[in-house]
Amino acid sequence: MVSFESDYSTGCHPAVLEALAATNLEPCSGYGSDRFCERAAARIREACAAPQADVRFLAGGTQTNAVVLSALMNPGEGVVAADSGHISVHEAGAIECTGHKVLTIPERNGKLAAADLRAYLENFYADANWEHMVIPGAVFISHPSELGTLYSLAELEKLSEICRDYEIPLYLDGARLGYGLAARCTDVTLPDIARLVDAFYIGGTKCGALCGEAVVFPRSNAPHHFLTHVKRHGALMAKGRLLGVQFDALFTDGLYFRIAENAIDRAEELKAVLEEAGCEMFRPSPTNQQFVIMENGKMEALAQQVKFSFWERFDETHTVIRFVTSWSTTEEDIAVLRDALATLDD
Amino acid sequence: MVSFESDYSTGCHPAVLEALAATNLEPCSGYGSDRFCERAAARIREACAAPQADVRFLAGGTQTNAVVLSALMNPGEGVVAADSGHISVHEAGAIECTGHKVLTIPERNGKLAAADLRAYLENFYADANWEHMVIPGAVFISHPSELGTLYSLAELEKLSEICRDYEIPLYLDGARLGYGLAARCTDVTLPDIARLVDAFYIGGTKCGALCGEAVVFPRSNAPHHFLTHVKRHGALMAKGRLLGVQFDALFTDGLYFRIAENAIDRAEELKAVLEEAGCEMFRPSPTNQQFVIMENGKMEALAQQVKFSFWERFDETHTVIRFVTSWSTTEEDIAVLRDALATLDD
Amino acid sequence: MVSFESDYSTGCHPAVLEALAATNLEPCSGYGSDRFCERAAARIREACAAPQADVRFLAGGTQTNAVVLSALMNPGEGVVAADSGHISVHEAGAIECTGHKVLTIPERNGKLAAADLRAYLENFYADANWEHMVIPGAVFISHPSELGTLYSLAELEKLSEICRDYEIPLYLDGARLGYGLAARCTDVTLPDIARLVDAFYIGGTKCGALCGEAVVFPRSNAPHHFLTHVKRHGALMAKGRLLGVQFDALFTDGLYFRIAENAIDRAEELKAVLEEAGCEMFRPSPTNQQFVIMENGKMEALAQQVKFSFWERFDETHTVIRFVTSWSTTEEDIAVLRDALATLDD
Amino acid sequence: MVSFESDYSTGCHPAVLEALAATNLEPCSGYGSDRFCERAAARIREACAAPQADVRFLAGGTQTNAVVLSALMNPGEGVVAADSGHISVHEAGAIECTGHKVLTIPERNGKLAAADLRAYLENFYADANWEHMVIPGAVFISHPSELGTLYSLAELEKLSEICRDYEIPLYLDGARLGYGLAARCTDVTLPDIARLVDAFYIGGTKCGALCGEAVVFPRSNAPHHFLTHVKRHGALMAKGRLLGVQFDALFTDGLYFRIAENAIDRAEELKAVLEEAGCEMFRPSPTNQQFVIMENGKMEALAQQVKFSFWERFDETHTVIRFVTSWSTTEEDIAVLRDALATLDD
Repeated sequence: MVSFESDYSTGCHPAVLEALAATNLEPCSGYGSDRFCERAAARIREACAAPQADVRFLAGGTQTNAVVLSALMNPGEGVVAADSGHISVHEAGAIECTGHKVLTIPERNGKLAAADLRAYLENFYADANWEHMVIPGAVFISHPSELGTLYSLAELEKLSEICRDYEIPLYLDGARLGYGLAARCTDVTLPDIARLVDAFYIGGTKCGALCGEAVVFPRSNAPHHFLTHVKRHGALMAKGRLLGVQFDALFTDGLYFRIAENAIDRAEELKAVLEEAGCEMFRPSPTNQQFVIMENGKMEALAQQVKFSFWERFDETHTVIRFVTSWSTTEEDIAVLRDALATLDD
Repeated sequence: MVSFESDYSTGCHPAVLEALAATNLEPCSGYGSDRFCERAAARIREACAAPQADVRFLAGGTQTNAVVLSALMNPGEGVVAADSGHISVHEAGAIECTGHKVLTIPERNGKLAAADLRAYLENFYADANWEHMVIPGAVFISHPSELGTLYSLAELEKLSEICRDYEIPLYLDGARLGYGLAARCTDVTLPDIARLVDAFYIGGTKCGALCGEAVVFPRSNAPHHFLTHVKRHGALMAKGRLLGVQFDALFTDGLYFRIAENAIDRAEELKAVLEEAGCEMFRPSPTNQQFVIMENGKMEALAQQVKFSFWERFDETHTVIRFVTSWSTTEEDIAVLRDALATLDD
Repeated sequence: MVSFESDYSTGCHPAVLEALAATNLEPCSGYGSDRFCERAAARIREACAAPQADVRFLAGGTQTNAVVLSALMNPGEGVVAADSGHISVHEAGAIECTGHKVLTIPERNGKLAAADLRAYLENFYADANWEHMVIPGAVFISHPSELGTLYSLAELEKLSEICRDYEIPLYLDGARLGYGLAARCTDVTLPDIARLVDAFYIGGTKCGALCGEAVVFPRSNAPHHFLTHVKRHGALMAKGRLLGVQFDALFTDGLYFRIAENAIDRAEELKAVLEEAGCEMFRPSPTNQQFVIMENGKMEALAQQVKFSFWERFDETHTVIRFVTSWSTTEEDIAVLRDALATLDD
Repeated sequence: MVSFESDYSTGCHPAVLEALAATNLEPCSGYGSDRFCERAAARIREACAAPQADVRFLAGGTQTNAVVLSALMNPGEGVVAADSGHISVHEAGAIECTGHKVLTIPERNGKLAAADLRAYLENFYADANWEHMVIPGAVFISHPSELGTLYSLAELEKLSEICRDYEIPLYLDGARLGYGLAARCTDVTLPDIARLVDAFYIGGTKCGALCGEAVVFPRSNAPHHFLTHVKRHGALMAKGRLLGVQFDALFTDGLYFRIAENAIDRAEELKAVLEEAGCEMFRPSPTNQQFVIMENGKMEALAQQVKFSFWERFDETHTVIRFVTSWSTTEEDIAVLRDALATLDD
């Protein structure tokens, strides 16, 4: 059945697989000290226009958030995030598992608003009892957000400014960063992100790799003893090459961006097909995740024909469902969805 | 340069790569709930003669040790291990990172002796102050051990009996389990292990996979909410298929065992070549790791010709070095080593 | 200056001090195994009408919350609490320090509403992704709440019923429990609490002791190896007698309840004095904490004459301030406040 | 029965109790911000000849070790200690509970030898795989040691020098520091300690207080946000005055040192009495703990007449037992012991 369930339902982009095959027999040293990781890091530094960047490779998103955030914070500090943030809701307490609290601010369209962040920090230090409370030690944003929305350059600049005022590192979760950069309306580039945040990751798992996220500390600012920190969180891969080879391929000849463009093109078609069929969008999303409010009967009928994912209950009779495109979504897949939606109206 | 540096210096066995390619475009659900994981689990249950086993897949060895041991123990309990155990020395404190202490007993030929374990536990509970000490909550062994040595069936049976007497789970780290099972002298089989321990993992990363370890709870005894536990340790792969497909391939037609047999065959040749060249073995090893005491000058000369790894300083003028074979070691590689050793004598 | 700043601004009730003096030279064993702790536990069991209760003594409230909650939960589970709960806001992340998340529900008059709790749990398990989220493993309430409010017996019964339906332990923070039990309007008794919750503590520090909280597991249900758990959290006092002697005194001849009655009597007078002076109450409180909305100028003038504590900003020109009574508050103190308030009107 | 069981079997020195009584009704602010803590800190700074010292008060020894060491180290670093060290054996894993490993070196007469420490650190950084191991982040010593032994000034100077060479903080556990300073043979003073270590605590619980340890960071080097760190470990007392008043009393007119002198005088008499009775000392101790090897039958007979504590099994027929003196041990107590020992010979 055609699937819009997620951007991790197929394997990896064929070029990534080819790179793995081509290098498979070449021996190299372990734990990320190999030439593939080195080459991938160089390509990423270039794509970020951040020649001083430290680039490290980890296997998955929740792991990356927990490992990097716990390295950026002092013991017991908390990370400020929108209450819809992945670390707040859908990581099973991985941040708390490292001893840090997630300090939440109500989301605005899936995002953390700069004004809300500033108010939070001002109120915190204005409180006579702040030493009895969890001290904000990092700020977490995701781009795209969990609702597929994007920060504007101006919004990122403001967040960055606040974090620098308070000397708190700004961390960006880029699980779907490619899709954010490829969105038609965005004014944010990879070098912008490298310039404005203190650490971020370029998502591989959801953007064409088998697994892997590239963590970037843009100003040679990897935390001291970061490799040991990664190791003690069980996140250091013996065959680091698996990550290096994939990111080397993804950042050769702009593959990462082309993957994302395909997903965005398909997402725009998907949006058109959904709107054409009279579906109400839950929130407007410029990226590869589209959220639709659907009447429950229709939803069940549609589920017989294509795969999508349940997002949340909307009301007694409606549900929010999610459609996701990826490198492997084809125009034919969209056509199948259009036809399936057409049958619902009968 | 020919490398005996480790069993994770090349990629994966070609058949594993082929399986990844063959299934790459098939969509499936995430987080280990896919049909590949299901099929791999079924094959592993069969190989273990443990039809009730819970089988789960994780990415790497240190991760697996920390995730499984912290799930097996009550908060604050400690895990008893030989002082040479991987969790004690070479995992950067991953166990302590979960709040548990590693309680060490001096190793005997790389192993935890049953008599030592029993004495430890007897003394512990004989101590009037045991409630002020870390309570033993699990026992860790590795098979093969970090020194390449193996438990006999009788030894495993004794350890298992003690653990059952004290109601402490026995956990076996099988990072190189294949090589242990394929060793020429062993009387231990996979079903024996499944019968005698409470949890163990079948190593993939060091036995032919790109990454991955198969955790087996042989008697449907996976800890409650284990998926959530894995998730909060950042160890749940979105594309769980990556692990499922690989283990499915490894446990089809006995590939896992054939990989190990090749490594053992080459290791036996390697041992012969080393002994022929007059090298002194540090400890006798029946598996794919061979430890040699070499005079420092010779060692440096040899390092110009083949790759191996430094193990530890032996004395002022000698070093213990390690040679490792794997699925990809060829007879030609051994010949290169023989020739290289020959040059040292001149 | 007369102080209404807190219920921990003076030392201990004179009878507690006398008991310490009277027993000072009697040797006894350490770590809570002494006859004073034993006797205090017996008295508390009787006061709770819980002859099977396990009673343990800890030094302070935040410590008790963290030690007991982390013992009640499985690793990684979260504790559900009102968002105004002490563990959520004012304990500097002590719960997260043990690896557990605080799962918040908006407070209703400082309390956790049973209907909200049920809805939370129903929605949680209705979510298709609940295994990726923090599993609720305990429920936290405080009685009196942080706003001085009280649960009715019916409310407690409903919370208890929900927790039993879901097999989640219900924990009650009784830092100011005495004041709650002595409130004029309450229909909740100590035996009710022992019957309805799974663990609670009877606050000593804020109710007449120098330090100390008595933890009660009403049905012999202290977590396994609780002493070791307490020890590893650094919470086991060598001179456990310090806690035992104090609670022995507090639960002799109803001293604990008399202390609380004095505080309640003074609080009622205080409320009358405040209302007489035209102060607007922030929230009605039947216990020893009274919250008043005061114009900032008046507040500063009042601060010259008596001590109280800042609670939170109300609006641009008003502040919420808190007045607290205790065992040591006298009628004369209330008179001083009345006179001070009178000067503000001039 | 006369007790030599521990130095925490009676309450506090009468002068401490008097100070508590005298100040009991004076209101003051909470959480250690009171004038008693301030005055006690000033007196301690003076006694340490460390006018810049940060002085904080905690309730107990295990708590202090865990709170301070976890504040001194980066996440995941380990603390080097003698394998007999209290944090290694008798604190139920309190250090591991904070995520840090205890890295052990075999003890020499209960102490950590400087040469052993240097060798450990040299070997650590000489290991090619040190990044995969727990990085030493602090050094722990206790003075007196758990066996009652003392470092000489020269030994402390060497340890200090090594720690400064490696930029690792040196921490001294002074649970029984008074007895160490009062020992007849020592050349170490309180200012020496303040000069040579980076953090230490002056034990109160075992030296005449009801509870309490004074932590000293001698060069204004308290870790950033230390109060919040203390709070999140549940170690911040609401009535901080309880600690302040006691240490104020202990450091007025040299009471702390007089308490220790009494214990040492009695310990010397005790040693004489034991030797006179033909007892074999386990290890020579110059402080208030004396360890004796006693034949099991004799031990049981003695236990009918005086209290002492079991230390460890010596051999099949002998046991190591411990006798401890304190501020409250009298010459009469020693006489009772002498008489009791005399009966054994009959």
